[in-house]
Amino acid sequence: MRYLVTGAAGFIGSHTVDRLLADGHEVIGIDSYITGKREFLANASTSPHFSLTVGDLFDFTTVLEACEGVDAVFHLAANTDVRYGTDHPRRDLDQNVIVTWNILEAMRRRGIKTILFSSTASIYGDATILPTPEDGPLAIQTSLQSASKLAAEAFIAAYANGYGIRALIFRLASIVGERDSHGHIFDFCRQLRKHPDRLNVLGDGTVRRSYLDVADCVDAMLLALQHAASPVNVFNVGSLTNCQLTESISWITSELNLQPVIEFGGPGPAWVGSSPVIFLDSSKLTSLGWQPKLGLEAAVRRTVNYLSANPWLFSGLPEGRA
Amino acid sequence: MRYLVTGAAGFIGSHTVDRLLADGHEVIGIDSYITGKREFLANASTSPHFSLTVGDLFDFTTVLEACEGVDAVFHLAANTDVRYGTDHPRRDLDQNVIVTWNILEAMRRRGIKTILFSSTASIYGDATILPTPEDGPLAIQTSLQSASKLAAEAFIAAYANGYGIRALIFRLASIVGERDSHGHIFDFCRQLRKHPDRLNVLGDGTVRRSYLDVADCVDAMLLALQHAASPVNVFNVGSLTNCQLTESISWITSELNLQPVIEFGGPGPAWVGSSPVIFLDSSKLTSLGWQPKLGLEAAVRRTVNYLSANPWLFSGLPEGRA
Repeated sequence: MRYLVTGAAGFIGSHTVDRLLADGHEVIGIDSYITGKREFLANASTSPHFSLTVGDLFDFTTVLEACEGVDAVFHLAANTDVRYGTDHPRRDLDQNVIVTWNILEAMRRRGIKTILFSSTASIYGDATILPTPEDGPLAIQTSLQSASKLAAEAFIAAYANGYGIRALIFRLASIVGERDSHGHIFDFCRQLRKHPDRLNVLGDGTVRRSYLDVADCVDAMLLALQHAASPVNVFNVGSLTNCQLTESISWITSELNLQPVIEFGGPGPAWVGSSPVIFLDSSKLTSLGWQPKLGLEAAVRRTVNYLSANPWLFSGLPEGRA
Repeated sequence: MRYLVTGAAGFIGSHTVDRLLADGHEVIGIDSYITGKREFLANASTSPHFSLTVGDLFDFTTVLEACEGVDAVFHLAANTDVRYGTDHPRRDLDQNVIVTWNILEAMRRRGIKTILFSSTASIYGDATILPTPEDGPLAIQTSLQSASKLAAEAFIAAYANGYGIRALIFRLASIVGERDSHGHIFDFCRQLRKHPDRLNVLGDGTVRRSYLDVADCVDAMLLALQHAASPVNVFNVGSLTNCQLTESISWITSELNLQPVIEFGGPGPAWVGSSPVIFLDSSKLTSLGWQPKLGLEAAVRRTVNYLSANPWLFSGLPEGRA
């Protein structure tokens, strides 16, 4: 098979590229390198079965060209600046909705019949059912990021229904692991490199998440691809348990062998649109035989170890913008 | 109050304009006249409290200018070409999503704190719960129109949550009544004007709908506006009963005093993305005191009478593109 992977130089994208190559596929990557990193494609770039287009998916012609001769698309590119969405009110629309439409329309014109899409558990909003199943209640969207992902999902489903495309939509919990350079683990490790004696935490630390290692996430996508027979197939992808942020903090500091003073930001969510609890019912995936290989603690600790071994990731970003 | 009404020369838009003027408000209308009709604003145009901008909401500058000095926005403009959505895969994204974002962003910059939005019951997809409540299951979208409306809803909610805007989202059942120039009543009346002895019906006639008169719809929006206190307020707006399409056909032909041969198009939905049953649970509205003044049959018959009295509406459109 010949796969196009968007966001190929990103966190989940680069792992997907590596895995597809290891499985013997041809892979075309596309990335703008705005947030993607060349280093993440170091292994892939040595493969004769990999090629990379550096380009902006917002440009339809670029997308149409990248889709030539492709059998299926892993659409993993997205705006990664989730927390600061309200500072850039147009970005999620452009990068998550219009770009997804560009992919879909290019697929239609090229006759590509399969798309795999990385959506987010955030579309369940402040979920009332926990763990949340795929057909949970239609929630009020609380952030531009979740709104844009729900919008992208909706267009993917409409294209699947209208034009005979098979869609796999993955609603991802907090994915962590090697190459993770966003989110709380990255932010906390960076802080603790700078001042090992104290840690500032947004919010009151009570949010609950179900961290999943990126390799388990890629496993889930590839297993689902073998089994998904409907026009539109939606899968929750999260770990089978969840923890409070304070637990994750204890694993991070323990792994770093530090005992910082923790300064919490106060009551309420960490930022506008952050859900108090994200815990997915992933039984649709486990019924196919999927099981996470790493538990929450192991996944968090692996991420910390990777970041300790790759301090170059911390350079060049302003404080707090992980 | 000073209201901006988008799609002011449209079906629901022009009724909203008339009602707001009758209630003593200032109204600024905006319409591109692509599907809106000057005749629908004949009364409004005589009012010193009404002004109209002819312009395209896809142009952000136009929207920003139209929003000057406005207290609240009725965003009722939309792509009306629902049935043929798959022929124009970009139109719903442009006219329903990007335009809605333009409205929201203009509101944010102008400090406008209230938006009322006409969404659609179609976002419930092939609903499994009937009548369908507002927090029904998140459905797989079956058409570009429903996808784009769900996307618009999501961005409205995210703006409400992120920027302190109050949103009222109305998921409308099939709205009919005077000035209705889309949908099955219009299509059937036009056919029967041309050949009174036969009627071609898309699909097998078994779809069920809950037709609501447009005046009852406008009543619902204005009543909800008085009571909606949350940042995001979602209301189903449909009649309290439903009927099969064949019943509506019998009312239409009876009102026209005709007995045509009915030719059904065959099994399945009328077109790709058409839901087999749309029946909303509107109890959130009725608990506020709302009750439709017209039943389904009266609403359908009123529409037929209006169309008989206004044959000019049938000119200029190619067959079957109602």
